[in-house]
Amino acid sequence: MSMVGLRRVVEPAGVLPQAAWRLDASPEIGPDETRIRVQRLNLDAASYRQLAEKHAHNGDAIRAEVLDIVATRGKMHNPVTGSGGMLIGVVEEVGPESPLAVEPGDRVATLVSLTLTPLRITDGLAGWDGLSEQVPAEGTAILFGRSIVGVLPDDLPPELALAVYDVCGAPALTDRVVRGHHKSAGQAGADRVTVAVLGGAGKSGSLTLAAARRAGARTVAVVVNEAERDALTKAGLADHVAIADARDPVAVAEAVGEPADVTVVCVDVPGCEHGAILATANGGTVIFFSMATSFPAAALGAEGLAADVTMLIGNGYVPGHAEFAVDLLRQVPAVRALFEARIAAD
Amino acid sequence: MSMVGLRRVVEPAGVLPQAAWRLDASPEIGPDETRIRVQRLNLDAASYRQLAEKHAHNGDAIRAEVLDIVATRGKMHNPVTGSGGMLIGVVEEVGPESPLAVEPGDRVATLVSLTLTPLRITDGLAGWDGLSEQVPAEGTAILFGRSIVGVLPDDLPPELALAVYDVCGAPALTDRVVRGHHKSAGQAGADRVTVAVLGGAGKSGSLTLAAARRAGARTVAVVVNEAERDALTKAGLADHVAIADARDPVAVAEAVGEPADVTVVCVDVPGCEHGAILATANGGTVIFFSMATSFPAAALGAEGLAADVTMLIGNGYVPGHAEFAVDLLRQVPAVRALFEARIAAD
Repeated sequence: MSMVGLRRVVEPAGVLPQAAWRLDASPEIGPDETRIRVQRLNLDAASYRQLAEKHAHNGDAIRAEVLDIVATRGKMHNPVTGSGGMLIGVVEEVGPESPLAVEPGDRVATLVSLTLTPLRITDGLAGWDGLSEQVPAEGTAILFGRSIVGVLPDDLPPELALAVYDVCGAPALTDRVVRGHHKSAGQAGADRVTVAVLGGAGKSGSLTLAAARRAGARTVAVVVNEAERDALTKAGLADHVAIADARDPVAVAEAVGEPADVTVVCVDVPGCEHGAILATANGGTVIFFSMATSFPAAALGAEGLAADVTMLIGNGYVPGHAEFAVDLLRQVPAVRALFEARIAAD
Repeated sequence: MSMVGLRRVVEPAGVLPQAAWRLDASPEIGPDETRIRVQRLNLDAASYRQLAEKHAHNGDAIRAEVLDIVATRGKMHNPVTGSGGMLIGVVEEVGPESPLAVEPGDRVATLVSLTLTPLRITDGLAGWDGLSEQVPAEGTAILFGRSIVGVLPDDLPPELALAVYDVCGAPALTDRVVRGHHKSAGQAGADRVTVAVLGGAGKSGSLTLAAARRAGARTVAVVVNEAERDALTKAGLADHVAIADARDPVAVAEAVGEPADVTVVCVDVPGCEHGAILATANGGTVIFFSMATSFPAAALGAEGLAADVTMLIGNGYVPGHAEFAVDLLRQVPAVRALFEARIAAD
């Protein structure tokens, strides 16, 4: 149990670090912990927007509030939005019982939220003008034994690696599901699993398509408009690309055609549950990777359609997911090109 | 696609029947449809409560509004609560292309929601005083090809069968997951899967415990108080019964002890996600059967705990689930006794 950071919880007692109001961010580590020398915080977009709007884009006031939150809570956990972000730094010390595969000197990104990461800032954020989500910072952060950290690859720009890490759960879980899928004998195309990806042109969608294809699947992408269709067709990641509004169940099912064995939802808008279910064959699996997914809409939708589908809540953690996704990006130039275009557009 | 009832949707065009504002409830059936002669509606508790409060428990006014909703929408779909209920009736006509395993004369319960069931009322609900969720009614209802219906067993009171049908997805899916679970060699107790059920003393929880045990699992139940613990211990459905608040992650994990291979959440309160994840072994599965489950809390919780667990959205439909659950009730007298006590208390 200590591996989840309970010893860092100051108040209220007994909750997990994410649910805590205040953490102990002192730099001395326990046997399962790892200390990071912080270089940069990447604030969650929703959190930064709330702070910027509250302070009318006054950088000094935004900086002062971030410092106040971290000093008060021992973590950068925005009390209004409930969100955090991630950080980049260098591993300074690894406790003897830590299971994390890092060593002092590694440059890493933390892949768990800042909302549960003990954080201490020592430079008053003097290098930050308060006007961007990217926060140069000095200080220390603590990772627990049960945590997730990615070593930044030498061959990729950090912002590219971070963008990949941000969505790396989807391709890894898709790979696992495709490889574990047993087709019924006599089913159409019984030799090959079909994977449909709603939102196939986005960051998580394109990595998911690449992972599905590498796992041996036939791939179908559903995208929202002609620009995305053309970009994805040019990238060549899908055997079929169709345009449909992911919130329109009938349109999605028609776009996918023959029901898919595995459908992956990578569209971050509400209302995509029924289309995904309707586009999936009986005995198939739907993986929901959008935080806009409604649990009741999925559960009641499958029942209302008498759909015998397995519905997975997309877990952002699969062992080895960060390396898996970076490896895909390296091996599939089309995915890298899509990512670079998205980053340039942001 | 016709199997999901698209031809019954009047407005807006193109949506599924559940999302439709108005359905065509005419009694003539299409080739994949089945017509039921209605005997009784069971209104969803939330829907009835809203109507009763709106009309200050005036039975005539409540009845008038139910008639108005059904006449306007072609289905008993409460526009405020968004919920429906189920109905009991007798099969009158089955289309030649219907895949449903029923024939004329069968007394059945519809296991899909009234929110997607075309319904016509012909008696003005003259036999109903408006003061109960149980609505004697005459009229017709339509089932589509992709629908779910349960023949009422001769040997059980209808209210007992309905109570079982209401939760029958949980034991059937648990059975499937337990039988499909592959334990890693060398894992503690590698010969037997452990299933933990949060809310083990309730209706879905007790059936789930019985299903898990019949599938060969060791069973652990977490309940909320001593009365439930004593009742469940007496029933003998679990190898271990512990008391914990399901919203307290640390307490749940301690109550379960050695992490479970499969954890099933049958507690209908928000905030049970993290405890279920923390109580589950790496490589294990969490099945969420509570409509109070938060999708983001589950997804972010697993990531924050670096928990390699498969998280399933409890699908209310598994082929054969109604018969499976009724069979369990017949074979396990302790489950039947718990159900009868719950029904008597309602």
